[in-house]
Amino acid sequence: MNYQPRPDDVRFLLNTVLGATPRLRALAPFAEVDETLQAQVLDEAGKFVAEVIAPPNRDGDEIGCRFVDGEVITPPGFREAYRAFVEGGWPALSAAPEDGGQGLPAVLEAVLFEWLSAANHGLTMAPGLLHGAYECLRHHGSEELKQRYLSKIATGEWLATMCLTEAHAGSDLGQVRTRAVAQADGSFHVAGGKIFISGGEHDLSDNIVHLVLCRMPDAPAGPKGLSLVLVPKRLPDGSRNAVHCERIEEKMGLHGSSTCVMRFDDAIGWLIGEPNRGLAAMFVMMNAARLHVALQGIGLLDAAWQKADAYAHERRQMRAPGPAPASRGSETSDLVAEHPAIRRILDTQRAWIDGARLIAYRTAVQLDVARHDSDAKSRERAQRWCALVTPVLKSACTQQAFHGASECLQVFGGHGYVREWGIEQVVRDSRVTMIYEGTNEIQAIDLLVRKVLADGGAGMSALLIELRDELDAAREIDADVQRRLAQLRYLTTTLAMASAADPALPYEVADDYLRVVMISLLAWAWARIGRAAPQEARWNAPESAFRRWVLPEFELRLGIVKRACEAVSTRQAVA
Amino acid sequence: MNYQPRPDDVRFLLNTVLGATPRLRALAPFAEVDETLQAQVLDEAGKFVAEVIAPPNRDGDEIGCRFVDGEVITPPGFREAYRAFVEGGWPALSAAPEDGGQGLPAVLEAVLFEWLSAANHGLTMAPGLLHGAYECLRHHGSEELKQRYLSKIATGEWLATMCLTEAHAGSDLGQVRTRAVAQADGSFHVAGGKIFISGGEHDLSDNIVHLVLCRMPDAPAGPKGLSLVLVPKRLPDGSRNAVHCERIEEKMGLHGSSTCVMRFDDAIGWLIGEPNRGLAAMFVMMNAARLHVALQGIGLLDAAWQKADAYAHERRQMRAPGPAPASRGSETSDLVAEHPAIRRILDTQRAWIDGARLIAYRTAVQLDVARHDSDAKSRERAQRWCALVTPVLKSACTQQAFHGASECLQVFGGHGYVREWGIEQVVRDSRVTMIYEGTNEIQAIDLLVRKVLADGGAGMSALLIELRDELDAAREIDADVQRRLAQLRYLTTTLAMASAADPALPYEVADDYLRVVMISLLAWAWARIGRAAPQEARWNAPESAFRRWVLPEFELRLGIVKRACEAVSTRQAVA
Repeated sequence: MNYQPRPDDVRFLLNTVLGATPRLRALAPFAEVDETLQAQVLDEAGKFVAEVIAPPNRDGDEIGCRFVDGEVITPPGFREAYRAFVEGGWPALSAAPEDGGQGLPAVLEAVLFEWLSAANHGLTMAPGLLHGAYECLRHHGSEELKQRYLSKIATGEWLATMCLTEAHAGSDLGQVRTRAVAQADGSFHVAGGKIFISGGEHDLSDNIVHLVLCRMPDAPAGPKGLSLVLVPKRLPDGSRNAVHCERIEEKMGLHGSSTCVMRFDDAIGWLIGEPNRGLAAMFVMMNAARLHVALQGIGLLDAAWQKADAYAHERRQMRAPGPAPASRGSETSDLVAEHPAIRRILDTQRAWIDGARLIAYRTAVQLDVARHDSDAKSRERAQRWCALVTPVLKSACTQQAFHGASECLQVFGGHGYVREWGIEQVVRDSRVTMIYEGTNEIQAIDLLVRKVLADGGAGMSALLIELRDELDAAREIDADVQRRLAQLRYLTTTLAMASAADPALPYEVADDYLRVVMISLLAWAWARIGRAAPQEARWNAPESAFRRWVLPEFELRLGIVKRACEAVSTRQAVA
Repeated sequence: MNYQPRPDDVRFLLNTVLGATPRLRALAPFAEVDETLQAQVLDEAGKFVAEVIAPPNRDGDEIGCRFVDGEVITPPGFREAYRAFVEGGWPALSAAPEDGGQGLPAVLEAVLFEWLSAANHGLTMAPGLLHGAYECLRHHGSEELKQRYLSKIATGEWLATMCLTEAHAGSDLGQVRTRAVAQADGSFHVAGGKIFISGGEHDLSDNIVHLVLCRMPDAPAGPKGLSLVLVPKRLPDGSRNAVHCERIEEKMGLHGSSTCVMRFDDAIGWLIGEPNRGLAAMFVMMNAARLHVALQGIGLLDAAWQKADAYAHERRQMRAPGPAPASRGSETSDLVAEHPAIRRILDTQRAWIDGARLIAYRTAVQLDVARHDSDAKSRERAQRWCALVTPVLKSACTQQAFHGASECLQVFGGHGYVREWGIEQVVRDSRVTMIYEGTNEIQAIDLLVRKVLADGGAGMSALLIELRDELDAAREIDADVQRRLAQLRYLTTTLAMASAADPALPYEVADDYLRVVMISLLAWAWARIGRAAPQEARWNAPESAFRRWVLPEFELRLGIVKRACEAVSTRQAVA
């Protein structure tokens, strides 16, 4: 069973609930992007994903990428699908028209990548970093480099990688050792080894553009001595550069994407941005890249849900308790979907998918507001939203992808554990999203230590007030959410004070804090969806599941953080 | 890195904390089983598991079982390891001496199988059902069948399977269709297909004894028309019986165990027990088999923990917050183990492993008390413990195995997702334990609906009082546990009343109820361990992790069940 995008659901969230269109059309580049145009793009994208991207997904897992004589052969069907992707103009959806792009809002690209990941996570890895590389080069590249590479990357004709990790430098990029030595002609010679390079080598595009984090000979130690160098697989004269794939990793999943060990043997490259400012150049793309990983999580969870939902509506096992469901008919046993434990699993995953979508789509809209709004205050507010919400989404959506896909596997019983139904592939594929683009532990620390506590909680407090003001206190459910937002504000202040006394504290409870924020955002999202949604099981069942099974985590996590803060006060009082 | 059993930990829990030896020696068959003998058995078992069982585990995953011309070839090293297992007398550890067994307490066999699963889950599947088949045959087989098969099974010379599941009958065994037709000579002809048969075919033993659930021609429909028939792969005259493996499944993990699709073409077999009483005959082994799956979960989690703990004490990434840890020395970055988020992961898993071990070992002791105690009341109390606690352990320990192993994978960052370190194998292998031997959803229903509510909560209440009385109210931590046990008793009563009004209710909250019970048991276990443990990080760190990170789930789940009960009252009041 292949993934089937459902554009109607997305349109409902984007337009009816979020009211995104007027917000986007108020931005100069998107004045013409009305609901009709969006609908056309989404319908076309949905069709393309279902018909072209989803079918080779199984071979992507079972045959996978193969490493033969230094080359990577992608799974059957991947080349053709990627070719169609480029020819359809999909990689360039949100790139600027002057670079060969279509100039559409980031949120449409976000939806596209959510669906792509759901349909074929392995293949989607290939163009997954394109947009980031494009933004990085666009903002920091020299005119000459842009001339040579920008439109090739924008259109996906050439694929791109991010070469960050080294064997001894994973989360700790300050330990990067790959060297970049300046040459007389202005180029650099890059030497060293990189690992975990997604798409470091493959047969999907003629050239591969590597953005390599490295260190110049006299650079300071640590992260402030890192530079970013563009190293193409093929040099401008068509000859092969001295960059090689040494092997590809055997992984738990994601077999459709080559994870390469790369060797740079004085490969020729050109500096992007300033020397020793490589991390800053890279951070341009960080929020967008993390948001895309969150969307991978949402997409993979939706893929798992679709499989489990279909199975639960086909398979009959035993009688469900309570009054006979309509689906029983003359059968002696009931659909698996009628059993309360299974219904709970399915509705809970939908609560996550739809709620997280609303927050992720809003974040994608904010990316464009932060870039294009004519009002500086609006841009700043949008920037704050992206900075605070992105790590929350990245961590929570990827965790739910893995755990929720595992729940969906459970719906199949023993059939879930065998390859046949494809559900175990989703569990294996999704696991990596909790690790890459910054592990989920690092997202939590990024949120709490680097963002929330950095200004004593002021930015988070302002964001929570913004959310509060969008709710309707006269509605009981909204008032409940407002109460929780207030609790979270108070918690943030408490945590800021306790962390001043014990600097290790936030590192211990960062994940709990992140979860409180995510559950609050979901509560806000379901209050908004609930108000807009028609009285149908499609929306009411997950809303009810959210309140019964997901929302209680709010108190759990809040309690953990509060007690940790209290323990600090107690220790202080004793000392 | 191979799994390394730690007999000292087990001895501490079994003797110092649980005081199991006097309890066991009071039972007639174990009067001679003193601590010295136990220590010898555990030390030998630990050595054997580490040296013989663990090494072929990696090939078990990577090469796996292969299906060639109707035969199953097990992975390299499996035959030799299994041969050594039989020759060492390990399969017969708790079988009766008169059947060729060693007559040792079930708890020692439990520890052995926990370690075996930790070291090599795939290989352990082969003898995993031996003891169950042995008990089933011993209690229900005819003298002739016992004469022919009992000692072969007890000693592991011949392996055994349980053939239950059919393509359309998974959790719903009432739908089983395999036919058994009586022959003039007293034998039966068995015809039909079975799926998910672990070890249905392999090259580890000369004969394979299948216990097949089937239906006689005039049997009633549903579960009360099922009979159990013994069908050997080789007939007593040495000829091949008409039972064949059609293929083996491709699975998410557990590649070292063949999961077979079996075909019975009028295969010859002999009835075990009474016609139409097949399920009852099988249920003899149910509690022991489920306890063994719980122990698989504990073992796999310990295997994951050992890997993660070793990695976290080798790898350095970034500085940890707070004062410099002693392990920093002159290094610029700290061990991964010094980072609070990682320490939390590691200590939390240990809290689960050691706490769950205590409960599982106590349950294993109770299995023997239920069988051998001279006092009927004691036997009954032990039987009640096993009936109530076994489904809780099966569900909670297997869920924690998968989720905890995934947490341990996270400790490795990107290295966890590649095969190299073996941690992702534990995640994949462990996933099936949440499904087989009754899915975890079914365990929860078994606990709540079939056991707790069946007597209005009386049995559970008595068990909770028993636990309460073993605590020391003068100790603050014990008093806290007593308070929780009282809350659980009250919850049980509330649930019994609400379920009478809404029969679907317990099916909705069965999992939450099970979790409240498990967290309560863990709280009891850590109160006991904490009192006995020396002031060392080995025991204090997981105890503290339990209180900070695990225990709060008690209120979460209690709240979910309470609110569901209240909603029933509200609906009743309205109606």
